[in-house]
Order: sequence, then C-alpha cells, then structure tokens
Amino acid sequence: MDLAFAEAEAAALRGEVPIGAVIVDRSGTVIAAAGNRTLELKDPTAHAEMLAIREACAKFGSERLTSCDIHVTLEPCPMCATAISFARLRRVYFAASDEKGGGIEHGPRIFAQPTCHHRPDVYGGIGERRAAEMLRNFFAVRRN
Amino acid sequence: MDLAFAEAEAAALRGEVPIGAVIVDRSGTVIAAAGNRTLELKDPTAHAEMLAIREACAKFGSERLTSCDIHVTLEPCPMCATAISFARLRRVYFAASDEKGGGIEHGPRIFAQPTCHHRPDVYGGIGERRAAEMLRNFFAVRRN
Repeated sequence: MDLAFAEAEAAALRGEVPIGAVIVDRSGTVIAAAGNRTLELKDPTAHAEMLAIREACAKFGSERLTSCDIHVTLEPCPMCATAISFARLRRVYFAASDEKGGGIEHGPRIFAQPTCHHRPDVYGGIGERRAAEMLRNFFAVRRN
Repeated sequence: MDLAFAEAEAAALRGEVPIGAVIVDRSGTVIAAAGNRTLELKDPTAHAEMLAIREACAKFGSERLTSCDIHVTLEPCPMCATAISFARLRRVYFAASDEKGGGIEHGPRIFAQPTCHHRPDVYGGIGERRAAEMLRNFFAVRRN
C-alpha cells in the first residue's frame, strides 16, 4: 500500500486527483503501479486501477490476473470495480472508503450484484486516515 | 447503428465477442468507432465502448464528450456504463439488452444510482433482433 500512496502523491503533483493503485502477484512482487492520469491523458477511463490492470495484463500477456491482488488508496468506482472483476483479481485492498463515488461498499456495490461473475475478497480501511487526509488536502488547496 | 453493427461483425471475424460501438457528434458525424478487442489486446477493459470513448476523447483533446452520443450493439456493462457517465455522453442508443451482463437496465443499473453524477438519455432496443441474432450465432459456433 505504501507504493500506492507514493503513486497517489505523484498524481497530486501532476495536478490529478491523488489516487494510486498497485498490482502484486502471489509472492508480493509488484507487477504494475499507476496513479490517476485522467487529465493528463484526456481520458475519463484513465483511473489508477484501470492503468494498473492494463499494464499488468500487458506484462502477463493475458486478460486475466487470477493470482494477483490490487492495492488502491481509495475505494474503486463502479467502472474500476467491474474491471477488477473482469480481470479476475484475487483480492482488493483499499484505504479510504468513498461514499460519493465508490462502487464496492457504496452505490451499485458491484461485487454484491447477482450478475457479477467474479467477486474478489475485499479488505477496506487499510491506511484510511492517510488516504482521506491526502484527498482532503488536495481538494482544500483546489478550492482556495 | 449500422456502423456499430459493422464493427461488431469485424470483431466476430477477429474471434472476439461481436460488439460494436460508434460515437457521433451533434451533427451525426462519426467521431470514433470500435469493436471489442479484449482477446487481441489481452486487456479486459478493451470493450468496444471503452475503445470508442478513448478514441473520441483523444480526438477532441478532452475527457468530456458532452455533445456526443454513443451507439452500441449490446447494452453496456457496468464498467462501460460508468465510463459513459464519466465522459458525459449525451445519449446512449443500444440494440440488444443484456440480462446477464448489462449495467443500465439490468444488474447495478448504473444511471439509476443516487451516486451517479451524469445520466445520459437512454434508448434501448434499436435493432435488437439483429444484435441478439449475431451474438447467438457467434456463441452457437463457439459451442460446437
């Protein structure tokens, strides 16, 4: 999760909403790491999780990441939660939960849908305070 | 929608699930067209809609497609429906509805969620029979 936080900090320095994601394999080796790049890439799908999933799939040459876990600094949105399910990721660890935009514990609760075909194990609240503070600081500066 | 069907047919010829998507601007000019490429690109996020959104955003140099509509041969999944909302697409036209994997009229009904910040107008059932038949034929051949 530390590397995910570093990616989130790097995203903030680029002027992006500070969210970072890291994908590790069964042994804990980092396969992919990314921060949010929606503004830089002018791409509304360029969330940290999506970029990390695409990078990991490209490395493995497979659209499935069955033996991998993803660590994210914020509860994934419904787009990313669905992509996590499609990629067959084994576990999702996230820091802050997201009442307004989250798609796992909030909103459409993607993995709880009967039409969801792969439900990873979910562990929330890993470093929650740090992630929430980072987002709060980012938006506080923006609003001034 | 005819061009979306042509993209779906081209996807089938590549061995992909036959789904096509086209984004047009207010005047009806085609901005982006794509078929499903998840297997070819080894990318579980490479659905037709996602590729079309990314192509259109790249063309406009903007992560918002406020004045554009998307035509898809199958009801978008929750990932694509969320991306459509993020991209601020104005209207979604789709052909066949998708009880098992759809995310607009089925499953998480993304646009009906209180946490959904942009709800495009939705028009389903445009050429439903043609799209359903195309998918049925594709899977029938695969299962033999």
